[in-house]
Amino acid sequence: MARLIECVPNFSEGRDQAVVDKIAAPFSLQQGVRLLDVQTDGDHNRMVVTAIGTPREIKDAVMEAMAQAVALIDMSRHQGQHPRMGAVDVVPFIPLQESTMDEAVALSREVAREAASRFDLPVFLYERSATAPHRANLAAIRKGQFEGMAAKFQDPRWQPDFGPPRVHPSAGVTAVGARPPLVAFNVNLGTDRADIADAIAEKVRHIGGGLRYCKAMGVTLKERGQVQVSMNMTDFSRTALYQALELIRLEAGRFGVPVVGSEVVGLVPMQALIDCAAFYLGLENFRTDQVLESHLMTGL
Amino acid sequence: MARLIECVPNFSEGRDQAVVDKIAAPFSLQQGVRLLDVQTDGDHNRMVVTAIGTPREIKDAVMEAMAQAVALIDMSRHQGQHPRMGAVDVVPFIPLQESTMDEAVALSREVAREAASRFDLPVFLYERSATAPHRANLAAIRKGQFEGMAAKFQDPRWQPDFGPPRVHPSAGVTAVGARPPLVAFNVNLGTDRADIADAIAEKVRHIGGGLRYCKAMGVTLKERGQVQVSMNMTDFSRTALYQALELIRLEAGRFGVPVVGSEVVGLVPMQALIDCAAFYLGLENFRTDQVLESHLMTGL
Repeated sequence: MARLIECVPNFSEGRDQAVVDKIAAPFSLQQGVRLLDVQTDGDHNRMVVTAIGTPREIKDAVMEAMAQAVALIDMSRHQGQHPRMGAVDVVPFIPLQESTMDEAVALSREVAREAASRFDLPVFLYERSATAPHRANLAAIRKGQFEGMAAKFQDPRWQPDFGPPRVHPSAGVTAVGARPPLVAFNVNLGTDRADIADAIAEKVRHIGGGLRYCKAMGVTLKERGQVQVSMNMTDFSRTALYQALELIRLEAGRFGVPVVGSEVVGLVPMQALIDCAAFYLGLENFRTDQVLESHLMTGL
Repeated sequence: MARLIECVPNFSEGRDQAVVDKIAAPFSLQQGVRLLDVQTDGDHNRMVVTAIGTPREIKDAVMEAMAQAVALIDMSRHQGQHPRMGAVDVVPFIPLQESTMDEAVALSREVAREAASRFDLPVFLYERSATAPHRANLAAIRKGQFEGMAAKFQDPRWQPDFGPPRVHPSAGVTAVGARPPLVAFNVNLGTDRADIADAIAEKVRHIGGGLRYCKAMGVTLKERGQVQVSMNMTDFSRTALYQALELIRLEAGRFGVPVVGSEVVGLVPMQALIDCAAFYLGLENFRTDQVLESHLMTGL
């Protein structure tokens, strides 16, 4: 198997299809990279690219996409509902098969340094690449957004890791970092009471005293007449999907509410599902290379 | 994704490594084919190759391997514990991603016809490729083994589908066919009583009135002081692993015996595990292309 890295960069353009296409193109054109998805949102005025590739090649593709975004997006005129601070808002690298978090961190540092130098852009390292604990959380770095960054740069705690300590006039500020794969996992409850979903979300999520790598909130599904505990599982290798489900089932039992189903939104690493199958089947000594398809995952 | 077929041919040589290597070599050398495993057993005097490839290429590889086996193995001098009837004993084709059972059946017919003609070999079609119900089961075709085949050919019900109606003097008789992937799935019980494993196996397996695509028998695990229900799941897309496990758990409950674990032996298609994860998590509307790695399964 090849060493593979996933890259899910977010760019601040979700309305002009011509610009979206130019930013996404390097991922289609680059040998050794597969473009899996380009998601745009007009209200957010934002695009999210999902691509996989070998480390050198994914780096070349994302550097070229960043060049396009810096050239084509003007943050001084950008409007959108999603918090944002730069034309290239955030560039996460995710280690997949055969590659390690250390490799993803090293790659993120390379990209951050080269982008800062090539585009004269202030760049923060975040998540596992962060150079201080208060800079690990992307929301903390982005707080104040594009318009507030100039003031933020006055604070010695908020100097960029690479590039000049001043906001790029059109491209703003960028965050680059490595993180584990994120799984969007929602559990549906047989009730329409939002307060119950909220209460359960609070018990299951990390900040409420729940599972370490679980973010959760209650959501109402109006059409279904149900509520949902909507979760981001931020490191499924440590906090498994089945742990979240079974904790929710336990808490729901206090309210006499059944779990009626669940859903995975978007992509999920195979291992996250295998971990669940292995748990519920009680599988002993199962190795991922017993999965037939693991032998089909060649380079790109 | 490429259309892929798995081939798991069994050859009647498990002792002479030089012969084993020559028979396995075409699968290593053929472009578009990946050799996953070569398993030999001296007591059985038999080898089992596991390979995956695109249909044309896997056909070329297996035809070449058959040529080697026909040239190098003499059934008139073969001894071994495993039932066998030919140098190339059986050639199963299994549809994998993007390919269908119909394609695997068509491929098996092509290989059967060409092998019969090229090697002057009687060939039976079996399983999903069988031309009559009584010829679907490999054990029924092979009954009498190499030594009994000449007598069997006197019976009009046992004329080969291709090739001459007489046993090849050194290469015997071959069966070729298409079948679903087979999963070896064992469930361990918290007791050392073999009679309990036997009774449960009888209830869960097809011939005992249990699940349609489940073969099962009781096995004693001496070192662990436990017994096991050892199963072959012959079509996991219709009889799921979790159905077998939960039926065993129910039956075991009658004896006050707990299920203490399970194991998958050898390779398992990803979908068999995803089906289990989806069942226990209660996943709604899950699509296999949501598995990140499904996008990495390129051609070979």
